[in-house]
Amino acid sequence: MKRRYDFTNRDIVSIRGFTREEIDYILEVSHSMEPLAERGSDMLRGKVLAELFFEPSTRTMLSFQTAMYKLGGNVIGFAEPGVSSVWKGESLADTVRVVENYSDVIVLRHPLEGAARLAAEYAKVPVINAGSGAEEHPTQALLDLYTILKHKGRIDGLSIILMGDLRYGRTVHSLAYALSLYDVDLHLVSPDLLKMRREVIEDIKDRIKVTEHTDLMEILPDADVLYVTRIQKERFPDLGEYEKVRGSYVIDLNVLKKAKDDLIVLHPLPRVDEIAVEVDSTSFAKYFEQTKNGVVVRMALLALVLGAIK
Amino acid sequence: MKRRYDFTNRDIVSIRGFTREEIDYILEVSHSMEPLAERGSDMLRGKVLAELFFEPSTRTMLSFQTAMYKLGGNVIGFAEPGVSSVWKGESLADTVRVVENYSDVIVLRHPLEGAARLAAEYAKVPVINAGSGAEEHPTQALLDLYTILKHKGRIDGLSIILMGDLRYGRTVHSLAYALSLYDVDLHLVSPDLLKMRREVIEDIKDRIKVTEHTDLMEILPDADVLYVTRIQKERFPDLGEYEKVRGSYVIDLNVLKKAKDDLIVLHPLPRVDEIAVEVDSTSFAKYFEQTKNGVVVRMALLALVLGAIK
Amino acid sequence: MKRRYDFTNRDIVSIRGFTREEIDYILEVSHSMEPLAERGSDMLRGKVLAELFFEPSTRTMLSFQTAMYKLGGNVIGFAEPGVSSVWKGESLADTVRVVENYSDVIVLRHPLEGAARLAAEYAKVPVINAGSGAEEHPTQALLDLYTILKHKGRIDGLSIILMGDLRYGRTVHSLAYALSLYDVDLHLVSPDLLKMRREVIEDIKDRIKVTEHTDLMEILPDADVLYVTRIQKERFPDLGEYEKVRGSYVIDLNVLKKAKDDLIVLHPLPRVDEIAVEVDSTSFAKYFEQTKNGVVVRMALLALVLGAIK
Repeated sequence: MKRRYDFTNRDIVSIRGFTREEIDYILEVSHSMEPLAERGSDMLRGKVLAELFFEPSTRTMLSFQTAMYKLGGNVIGFAEPGVSSVWKGESLADTVRVVENYSDVIVLRHPLEGAARLAAEYAKVPVINAGSGAEEHPTQALLDLYTILKHKGRIDGLSIILMGDLRYGRTVHSLAYALSLYDVDLHLVSPDLLKMRREVIEDIKDRIKVTEHTDLMEILPDADVLYVTRIQKERFPDLGEYEKVRGSYVIDLNVLKKAKDDLIVLHPLPRVDEIAVEVDSTSFAKYFEQTKNGVVVRMALLALVLGAIK
Repeated sequence: MKRRYDFTNRDIVSIRGFTREEIDYILEVSHSMEPLAERGSDMLRGKVLAELFFEPSTRTMLSFQTAMYKLGGNVIGFAEPGVSSVWKGESLADTVRVVENYSDVIVLRHPLEGAARLAAEYAKVPVINAGSGAEEHPTQALLDLYTILKHKGRIDGLSIILMGDLRYGRTVHSLAYALSLYDVDLHLVSPDLLKMRREVIEDIKDRIKVTEHTDLMEILPDADVLYVTRIQKERFPDLGEYEKVRGSYVIDLNVLKKAKDDLIVLHPLPRVDEIAVEVDSTSFAKYFEQTKNGVVVRMALLALVLGAIK
Repeated sequence: MKRRYDFTNRDIVSIRGFTREEIDYILEVSHSMEPLAERGSDMLRGKVLAELFFEPSTRTMLSFQTAMYKLGGNVIGFAEPGVSSVWKGESLADTVRVVENYSDVIVLRHPLEGAARLAAEYAKVPVINAGSGAEEHPTQALLDLYTILKHKGRIDGLSIILMGDLRYGRTVHSLAYALSLYDVDLHLVSPDLLKMRREVIEDIKDRIKVTEHTDLMEILPDADVLYVTRIQKERFPDLGEYEKVRGSYVIDLNVLKKAKDDLIVLHPLPRVDEIAVEVDSTSFAKYFEQTKNGVVVRMALLALVLGAIK
């Protein structure tokens, strides 16, 4: 390990809060969690994680739970739709100042941008953002990086495609920013209507080479990583337009014939039909494994902010 | 213990997947769990159970949770109605391949027949069926057998009545099959409209003696076990017909005057009025105790499929 | 510690079930839980708490969960709105006799008065009332006492104001009774429509001095403790009447100018606008800390009724 950082009591609100060196360190700690994810550990025995999910995200919720349990800790919390309705009418600041008295760390999911930052300001315990508004989902970006690193042995020097809904997809913004801390070629592939927001590109284009495409085939042959996201019908004002583009953004065995043998295909899940089921059993497919990697990354973050690893 | 079997990583999908010897072994292991259910244990420390309940069954869900906790493990999951709605639109195969990355064993409840088998085919971790469709609920059948064995010291040679809704009742099909592996006299008592399905009887009648009745009194005096299930009003197209039959399938002290002193009365719960409250305090009543036995049986299954007992 | 009491297997249904000496003992045990709430403990390892919440009360639910986890135990249960709907149609007596087989202690929240007492009668395991009907919420009263004791070093000799909705507020009835076991001056401040019920005052006025007011300013200057509760708009048949009184029952910095420097302000939460946000950062404000104290008080009760402390 090159260098250690003390994350004790630090909030994980945005991927923008980290330097490349800090991210590298988190990924190293994540790797060290692999055996503990198998056999369990007592590292956080006696600690309690509070999950406050003001919008549903069952995968993320379960992933954090397992991360906490594998470290010997426990979990309380609530999830929409359901019991959290009773918190309506109370300000988020008040909720946080109550829940911090029940817990040692808070994981927050909220439909509004800025909610995680507000919670972090009020809470004495560390707050981890599990998605707030359309912008930030830092733990997803970290598990994406971890998966790339695990299979490619490096992130620098890779050719990486982000494909699908780049405009509204919560995960691709955090991921694009995170990748911009490395030396990568980033290719953005989407229908015109769903192109990456200008401000995201402005933010990263000075650090890395970014190109935009509507046709995947232009850049698939040279790619090392293909990150697919779902294109939602509701985004198209005209259904005909949707029907016209959707076929161009489906990954199947025929498309993958043009790819390098060691291309890896990622997806934040759930997938609908943007990746054909026939791809699942190929060596390209790493999208289910991503969820496994999410557990070790979250174990690392929990252990770090709770001061169990310094 | 006569013989040991290795159930490590085995799916528990159907009671039909077991030989009598294997069931006997599971019941022996269940018995060995009784002291651990009292004081707790570290046998599954660091292990995580995922409960995927696509339809509500709070008793079964809580029972598996307690079983896991008493062995030192932890539990994640979701239950309808509620958060699992967010999984809609994702195929069960995908859900299972995500959740197996968060857990060491999956317990599945699903409204569709075949769901548990499908999940077992996709999952690398063992899958336990907690009820799928109308057919199978193997852990309920095992706890029923365990309760009979506990009070009678044997299953062979007993006269056993299954009464009530034998057509739609999920538990009685698994139980009838399980009993057919033993040397029992099986008496089926129900209104004509709710008689046991032909295929279930065909399946077991070569192994054991099965008789059908509409009048309980014909065979109550000789019975050792009376298994009662609820007759639901909704099953009757004609409410008059329902009103006519329901009184004949209520167990009260007057009915039990005709029974042997050591008859035991079982019920999968919840009961409505098919067993009168006055029966609760008699020695006949073992239906609440069944739920206690369910915990040790599920502890045994979890310990077995996770390889903690071989 | 002056004297010890054995609470093993005792139900906590009503604050009226305790002598002052017993309450003093519970508060002492609560104090001894403070370090365990920080670092965790194995005191209840292997024990399972069942939370049956037939109406929502997320704060209380989470508080009991954390209390159990900090002692090394586990938690099962359900909460409205949600899965508990499946228990409808089953009698509470049956539910309790099922759930006691899954757990070592039951915490019950129920909209009907008397529900906790009924559950306690049927259950073989101890039952803790987490609020039933409009009358009793004993663990809230205990944490209120604990908070007063922690900051004032004593309860005897204090001047204590209960303000707001004294008619319908569930917590103030239990608290008024609890305070009547001590030597306090109790001042009740509320709009006429929301005055404390006659029977509560009758019950306590022989033991302590009780005065009623509509104007807080009459007694604020001499008070040591100000306990604020929310005045709900729905209680007023006439909205004009509500608008007229509400302003008189809001605590802000201007009001607190008239108070002693060491007054403490309490509130059962959630607060809406009856305490201005500007008060939060003053030394008067102890209402968020109350929730922290709730954890140690509930740890004490769980440890006591489960016989881990005698």
